[in-house]
Amino acid sequence: MTSNEAGRRPTLAVVGATGAVGTVMLSLLDERPGIWGEIRPIASARSAGRTVRVRGADVVVQALAPEVFDGVDVAVFDVPDEVSARWAPVAAAHGAVAVDNSGAFRMDADVPLVVPEVNADQIPTRPRGIIANPNCTTLSMIVAVGALHRAFGLESMFAASYQAASGAGQAGIDALYDQLTVVGGTRELGRTAGDVRKAIGEDGLGPFPAPLALNVVPWAGSLKDGGWSSEEFKVRNESRKILGIPDLRVSATCVRVPVITTHAVAVHARFTRPVTADEARTVLLNAPGVAVVDDPSAGEFPTPADVVGTDPTWVGRIRQSPDDPHEVALFLCGDNLRKGAALNTLQIAELLVQDWLYL
Amino acid sequence: MTSNEAGRRPTLAVVGATGAVGTVMLSLLDERPGIWGEIRPIASARSAGRTVRVRGADVVVQALAPEVFDGVDVAVFDVPDEVSARWAPVAAAHGAVAVDNSGAFRMDADVPLVVPEVNADQIPTRPRGIIANPNCTTLSMIVAVGALHRAFGLESMFAASYQAASGAGQAGIDALYDQLTVVGGTRELGRTAGDVRKAIGEDGLGPFPAPLALNVVPWAGSLKDGGWSSEEFKVRNESRKILGIPDLRVSATCVRVPVITTHAVAVHARFTRPVTADEARTVLLNAPGVAVVDDPSAGEFPTPADVVGTDPTWVGRIRQSPDDPHEVALFLCGDNLRKGAALNTLQIAELLVQDWLYL
Repeated sequence: MTSNEAGRRPTLAVVGATGAVGTVMLSLLDERPGIWGEIRPIASARSAGRTVRVRGADVVVQALAPEVFDGVDVAVFDVPDEVSARWAPVAAAHGAVAVDNSGAFRMDADVPLVVPEVNADQIPTRPRGIIANPNCTTLSMIVAVGALHRAFGLESMFAASYQAASGAGQAGIDALYDQLTVVGGTRELGRTAGDVRKAIGEDGLGPFPAPLALNVVPWAGSLKDGGWSSEEFKVRNESRKILGIPDLRVSATCVRVPVITTHAVAVHARFTRPVTADEARTVLLNAPGVAVVDDPSAGEFPTPADVVGTDPTWVGRIRQSPDDPHEVALFLCGDNLRKGAALNTLQIAELLVQDWLYL
Repeated sequence: MTSNEAGRRPTLAVVGATGAVGTVMLSLLDERPGIWGEIRPIASARSAGRTVRVRGADVVVQALAPEVFDGVDVAVFDVPDEVSARWAPVAAAHGAVAVDNSGAFRMDADVPLVVPEVNADQIPTRPRGIIANPNCTTLSMIVAVGALHRAFGLESMFAASYQAASGAGQAGIDALYDQLTVVGGTRELGRTAGDVRKAIGEDGLGPFPAPLALNVVPWAGSLKDGGWSSEEFKVRNESRKILGIPDLRVSATCVRVPVITTHAVAVHARFTRPVTADEARTVLLNAPGVAVVDDPSAGEFPTPADVVGTDPTWVGRIRQSPDDPHEVALFLCGDNLRKGAALNTLQIAELLVQDWLYL
């Protein structure tokens, strides 16, 4: 931080306070008292003037403008890329550290991309005054994969995602619920081609390119080179940057599934050293931010509906490849609105304040 | 076949005629007239005596007994493993060729495991009089993977499945519909841990170890060595046998998703020769039994709800790895009750009869 005034508790701006992630951010702030002084909710002009609950009190949401960052120590941004691209530098110019959950700055060489359990050491060097928060799919696996990397040396990784509707924001949640209302309990739907599509109509697709109820959709994000989706490239490029392995081989297929919240990922990872399932399990059991649930004989493994609303990265189905002693398969789940977005951002903000209070 | 009587059309026994796959088998037989003489529906004693529609006529289902195989040329089995294990050899001893869709004989060295588009050449050598039909998950991808293998030489393969409820039979379909009836349209469900589980209760799980509505469940089958599921080992071992690559490296994570019918699989495959996406697409466009839908810029890729009720293996999201020119990623869908079960079995039966009629 640029200031260090004894006796003052730091001011936090929450930009995007009325959105899906911003709402979770405010609820996390309720659960973590005693750190922040003023908490200032900020949103676009459209949502400004509304009140939101902040630590039990009604607080009026301010509209984005340069002066709302006056006196702010940390500004967390949960807004679309183009809003962050414009306003995070403004917050930084006003002396705040901007912690940005959009894709606008993640691959910028001058912006650290931080997951506290993996690379908190990257926080102090932030020449632009901006720290980026990774994509929610990357975050649903990287804490566990990072722990295994430290122990065994990651060489390559395959990832297939099972991504929740809320990854596409409130519009995604609404579309899935609306579709389920149409198809739920209608036993003939989903058995012949296009039934779901016909039942919900084109308007019912919401932010998804195909029906999501009683379906899975192998697409998230925008089209990139070679037919890859932006989400798949994010998993690859962000994993490389967070883990500090510029030439890491990462191949992902990102698929949306009819789940409201919590992303899951099947990961098959190869390490430079051999890894048994027990060795991997021991590392994961001791890794901060990771919870292991792995007893398939008792029907125990993480599922999205069981872990939604919790903080850790959940790991199960830990298996060594029968064909390659260096390869381990895992099934991971993480709440995409908490660790996948608001929680990781807030953890970074808290580490910034920790520096400021004690240095 | 062991007989070749001019002028007689072959007799087909459908064992398991009242089950989920058997029902699809009878409907396929309606669509493919002109091949079979008598079609004899057979089931367990519990279902025997009922009538089923066979080519527009009501036919009484006969109970499994040695004499029901008298005069049968081909007997298709869509029954649990233990029923096939007992009765397929009985059918063979009566002179029929048994085409079995259970897991009882698939890895038997004396039983060919056949996908007509891939290894029809294995059909004539069947010392036990039994031909096995692969698992539905293997079948949802192997036609396309087999075509790429012939062109480029498959070396290793990762597969993550998105498996439909009907893969667990009628009980799976019923459980998912019942769960959707409970959670459908109830907007607060699925947002906090255990909501779905609480709403449906333990009885509502059906054949799945966790709730499937608004969830995904990383488990299918029974527990095998090293924490792998039987379904995951089937994908590995059956792919090796069908493709004739005994040491093929295959690593799969099998996950159930809230879809009624049609399995999907994300496959990342490495070949001995380099493969561009265009080269892979050309091979797949020309492969029998494969349909390509691959234009993400127009929102076009296969999804389970769009292809259910159709015969081909659908392929989209064809991408060359940016890190490895020998690796291609694909997203595949196949109706698990048709090509994944009844259709492939019937195709084998038809090839057997083709031999018998023209040799």
